[in-house]
Amino acid sequence: MFDALWRNADLAVDGDPRTEQALRFNLFHVFQSSSRDGHSSTAAKGLTGEGYEGHYFWDAEAFMLPAMVTLAPELARGMLTYRHRTLERARHHARELNHARGALYAWRTISGDECSAYFPSGSAQYHINAAVAWAIRQYVDVSGDLGFLRDHGAEILFETARIWLDIGHFNARRNGAFCIHGVTGPDEYTALVDNNHYTNRMAQRHLRDAAQVAHWLAEYDPRFFAELSHRIDLESFEVMQWLRAADAMYLPEDAELGIFPQDDTFLDKPRMPTRAHGDAKRPLLLELHPLSIYRHQVCKQADTLLSLMLAGDGVSREAKRRNFDYYEGVTVHDSTLSASTFSVIAAEVGETDKAWRYFQETLRVDLDDLHGNAAHGVHMAAMAGSWLALCWGYGGVRINHGQLSLAPRLPDAWHGYRFGLQWRGSHLRVEVSQTGVHYSLTRGDEVSFHHEGELLQLRKGESLSLPHRFAEARQPLRAVIFDLDGVIADTAVVHRAAWEKLAQEIDAPFDEVLAERMKGVDRRGSLEILLERAPRAYSEAEKDELGERKNRYYREQIGSFGPENLLPGARHAVEATRNAGLRVALASASRNAPLLLERLGIADLFDYIVDASTIERSKPDPEIFLAAAAGLGVAPAACLGVEDAAAGIASIRAAGMVAVGVGQREALGEADVVLPGLTAFRIVEFVEDKNRATAERAEASHINT
Amino acid sequence: MFDALWRNADLAVDGDPRTEQALRFNLFHVFQSSSRDGHSSTAAKGLTGEGYEGHYFWDAEAFMLPAMVTLAPELARGMLTYRHRTLERARHHARELNHARGALYAWRTISGDECSAYFPSGSAQYHINAAVAWAIRQYVDVSGDLGFLRDHGAEILFETARIWLDIGHFNARRNGAFCIHGVTGPDEYTALVDNNHYTNRMAQRHLRDAAQVAHWLAEYDPRFFAELSHRIDLESFEVMQWLRAADAMYLPEDAELGIFPQDDTFLDKPRMPTRAHGDAKRPLLLELHPLSIYRHQVCKQADTLLSLMLAGDGVSREAKRRNFDYYEGVTVHDSTLSASTFSVIAAEVGETDKAWRYFQETLRVDLDDLHGNAAHGVHMAAMAGSWLALCWGYGGVRINHGQLSLAPRLPDAWHGYRFGLQWRGSHLRVEVSQTGVHYSLTRGDEVSFHHEGELLQLRKGESLSLPHRFAEARQPLRAVIFDLDGVIADTAVVHRAAWEKLAQEIDAPFDEVLAERMKGVDRRGSLEILLERAPRAYSEAEKDELGERKNRYYREQIGSFGPENLLPGARHAVEATRNAGLRVALASASRNAPLLLERLGIADLFDYIVDASTIERSKPDPEIFLAAAAGLGVAPAACLGVEDAAAGIASIRAAGMVAVGVGQREALGEADVVLPGLTAFRIVEFVEDKNRATAERAEASHINT
Repeated sequence: MFDALWRNADLAVDGDPRTEQALRFNLFHVFQSSSRDGHSSTAAKGLTGEGYEGHYFWDAEAFMLPAMVTLAPELARGMLTYRHRTLERARHHARELNHARGALYAWRTISGDECSAYFPSGSAQYHINAAVAWAIRQYVDVSGDLGFLRDHGAEILFETARIWLDIGHFNARRNGAFCIHGVTGPDEYTALVDNNHYTNRMAQRHLRDAAQVAHWLAEYDPRFFAELSHRIDLESFEVMQWLRAADAMYLPEDAELGIFPQDDTFLDKPRMPTRAHGDAKRPLLLELHPLSIYRHQVCKQADTLLSLMLAGDGVSREAKRRNFDYYEGVTVHDSTLSASTFSVIAAEVGETDKAWRYFQETLRVDLDDLHGNAAHGVHMAAMAGSWLALCWGYGGVRINHGQLSLAPRLPDAWHGYRFGLQWRGSHLRVEVSQTGVHYSLTRGDEVSFHHEGELLQLRKGESLSLPHRFAEARQPLRAVIFDLDGVIADTAVVHRAAWEKLAQEIDAPFDEVLAERMKGVDRRGSLEILLERAPRAYSEAEKDELGERKNRYYREQIGSFGPENLLPGARHAVEATRNAGLRVALASASRNAPLLLERLGIADLFDYIVDASTIERSKPDPEIFLAAAAGLGVAPAACLGVEDAAAGIASIRAAGMVAVGVGQREALGEADVVLPGLTAFRIVEFVEDKNRATAERAEASHINT
Repeated sequence: MFDALWRNADLAVDGDPRTEQALRFNLFHVFQSSSRDGHSSTAAKGLTGEGYEGHYFWDAEAFMLPAMVTLAPELARGMLTYRHRTLERARHHARELNHARGALYAWRTISGDECSAYFPSGSAQYHINAAVAWAIRQYVDVSGDLGFLRDHGAEILFETARIWLDIGHFNARRNGAFCIHGVTGPDEYTALVDNNHYTNRMAQRHLRDAAQVAHWLAEYDPRFFAELSHRIDLESFEVMQWLRAADAMYLPEDAELGIFPQDDTFLDKPRMPTRAHGDAKRPLLLELHPLSIYRHQVCKQADTLLSLMLAGDGVSREAKRRNFDYYEGVTVHDSTLSASTFSVIAAEVGETDKAWRYFQETLRVDLDDLHGNAAHGVHMAAMAGSWLALCWGYGGVRINHGQLSLAPRLPDAWHGYRFGLQWRGSHLRVEVSQTGVHYSLTRGDEVSFHHEGELLQLRKGESLSLPHRFAEARQPLRAVIFDLDGVIADTAVVHRAAWEKLAQEIDAPFDEVLAERMKGVDRRGSLEILLERAPRAYSEAEKDELGERKNRYYREQIGSFGPENLLPGARHAVEATRNAGLRVALASASRNAPLLLERLGIADLFDYIVDASTIERSKPDPEIFLAAAAGLGVAPAACLGVEDAAAGIASIRAAGMVAVGVGQREALGEADVVLPGLTAFRIVEFVEDKNRATAERAEASHINT
């Protein structure tokens, strides 16, 4: 048993035997404390003490299971089998909380029955259901164990997903967003809040997974699905509702701070004043009444950040950094669960010093008795968290949508380190040194994974060495992503003409000031600007019609476009990029882009065109450029973006790409390079510049380490 | 003892002996259960059962004390003396909740120590401090017992007020409003909410009272004040902070619904679905888990409405009606405290049928065992609530700012009723019959009180009969309130000229559309409209300067006005109104109004000019017209308002006055009468119309009853 564990963990830290020992000590405790028979889970204190009376919590799934699935999948399976065995108790608990259907796992339990005394910090933590669902997905993605998914996982996913539809609702006062009221998140220094970000984000993931598994099972084993659906009285309408709720999930970003508020009123509260007296090492809860704590902006542990660790794909690195910076300022880390999350996110956003400090916190929590209560038993989730900080933090490991990703970085303190991962029966060894990353397949036939966003494959016996790519500029240039309007073709005049025509028809004045205000604004926004001075008010239906009419005029105009409407140098820039061996994509928010490229005669020069209808956030959000990079299969750091507007340049930079501006320098100050037009675009120079910068920075970094 | 009680209560209900008996039964229990020695308060179940273990709660002050202060002031004094005796325990309780200074009364107690088990519905109800403070004010206002205020009341007020500054803060994210987070209001079907409206409104009243008493005591007994301040370490800075917090108190009105949200997220929650099963008479809490209740928009009892009963002066009747309508829809009345508040507010907003139904609920709660638990003891606060429903509800009794007000109405079911009130040692008998109200002074030398907003005075042996005035139209006309711009003088052209001059100076276009949009918009709003099309952006400081500049141009212009600038018929309309014996006021939002009246030569024709700087809410809010009526000392229902804009007409109607529009009928559709101009204003006709309508409705009402 332990032989296999050490073989799979494949741990080594070059030049830091003390850390290596601590990691092994932690893994030993986690693994020896785990049940082997599927009749129990792993207790918060493992087998080492009487703290928490031997109870299991959500942290078994959220913090311990990720290590187990890649190092000892049979233990992860056992932990989830225990959840299936106690599903009937979870149903019973759901009935106690007035849910006519579905299941809610107990907050603290052994037998499956709720054992927490104070429900505002116990049963109100509905997010435990999402943690179990998340763990099922992790286990099945890593192991490929579809039999488990059918026999146990699906029933858990469906029954637990149902609770969200009971406790959430589509809120007409917030544009129909799906809101969840009266819950407690992982941060127990608030209680009974509305729209806890962690809960909403994890519920969204849970609902999507449940719906996806329902569709999969209906295909994979229709008889089994029919039988299960009948047994738990599941209707297809419910599955549709899960997707509807997930799509409409309320996950707002604060406009001023650019962060996800922990809940509806969290940001409105004052911060906790500096503690004037008492032992600052003691948990706040031992010093202050919960009422004093609840009314302040103070977090016991990672809450929003944890959701960005467990389900943060699709959130830009910039947004993660803003959230990290903000929540670090209000978190007191009174829970030992906190440090590993902070370490993982710190590593992801490039805060290497902080990542190291939090790593040490979670690594040595019990060996050095950092919280002064190891006598009650060791902190199993924090111990497993040290493995998370190593592999998810420094190794950049994530498992999303059935795919394994890595993005390894080397802490300054080490010469190198090594860890191993099991993936669908294969074993991948990851060795990180000062010169780069070495991947080797030590067992199994094949493994595919993303390295820094790039899809790689290793077959039996193969290995692969890659240079470090942990700073954006260290990536060689592999793709160019063009904006359309104002870069490839000047459609602004066509838009303007279409608006002007519409303005005449409805007797609204139209002038330069108006045209300027419409720049970069979407169709509906532009219409509102036009209607400000219209002689009468328009209903929503009429506005829809006006917008459609303007679009029709626009499409009529570009229907008569030809290659002569290309901006000077555009065709040559795209062709030269392709000839230099680079890939080319178009990132335009216009749904008319495919038609336009067609008319301009350059559609076949593009490897990928972003589908504007899938983009939720407009520039300057990086979403559209990240989507273009993903479509090309190229890491964002290996891309260059070309834009003519300040918002576009901001979008490119937020995506971590080199930004080339076309137009006036004053308006595009944030661009890395500004060209007067595409006639001045020399792809070869960009490739050489990028490679030189990469080499220089690599050298500089070599001297530092 | 009881002789005096029945003499003071002076109760009689003509034609309904059963109700009279129930009222006496209820009062008997409240009075026999009250402590006589100042060492205890009145228990929730009085002396009748073991429910609530003999504990005292806030309802002693909020529901029982109002009857005691007017019927047996020595019992009210004893109840408050008990609070003073246990002030040291309240200080101790505040320390337990981490308050370094001040006192917080225990939620349930006998000795003064907190005995509640579940703090989210116990100690989190900080509003108990405000209830004690409110009761002190009631007792002192009614009794005139300034000795008590000095010796006991002041210390309680100061020590309890301090807690608000600890648990609230000036919130930069809400324009510096004073916000209070993490409390529970009277409605225990929510817990740990932010900005509970009841708590905030009562805290505002409490803070103002505390500051006022501090200023009074410093004058009244400077040595005592100095000694007390020294003993409790009170600084003048604190008193300033109390006023600052009260002035900035966060009491928002929902823009869409026009109601006060019960807390920050209450209105966002879904309503409780209709109960599919179970006994609808059982309290929800016996059927549903608190988590199910908390996430719904459902109230156990009056919460926001209670604040409008206890501290609702300054809130318009229209706003009270909107709040009544809304909260009635989401309240289940599982607490017996609820019915009396609903009855009082229903009577105030004219919902006579509902007032009657809620009156019966609170009147017969124990005699008919309406909640099925009278065996645990009777409901002392609901019993006292039946007296509230009679005197505060039907009698319209309120005590605000040291003044007694009444506005008696007769329920359809009765031929008449009678009640008595003590006021500063005198005794006022109030007899209500179908023909009117009869006031008589049965003891004492003098009493002053407001009847339907009108100040009356009775001396020894005097009595006074007044006709009913309970429908707006039943009031004879006694005053006319004029708007200025567009009614008395046409200043719109002057405003326009000033704006146009400013527009030229900053090169902004100015046309008819713009001028039209500025109509009825205040100075800053108009400036923003102008700047929309300005060639550049302006800073806040620059905007201030532009606004000042426009005002200077305006004042220069009106400085050269003379009587020739009066609109046709204006002077005659005002003079004729005075000659008809009516009073005249001006309700203009312009701070230049006094200057303008001066220039027009009619300043001395007005009895009252509203000070625009004291008006917080602009038309169509009724505030400015209500302020004009108050300034004249005439009931709003006896006033007629003259306006030229739709918002002004709405303001007049919301104030409950007759609305006369000057201008185009299409634009003033809501007005009772529309005249082309003041030349058509015939005051005599209005007086006659009003009196005829009053007579007709009185007759119609007579037939109905």
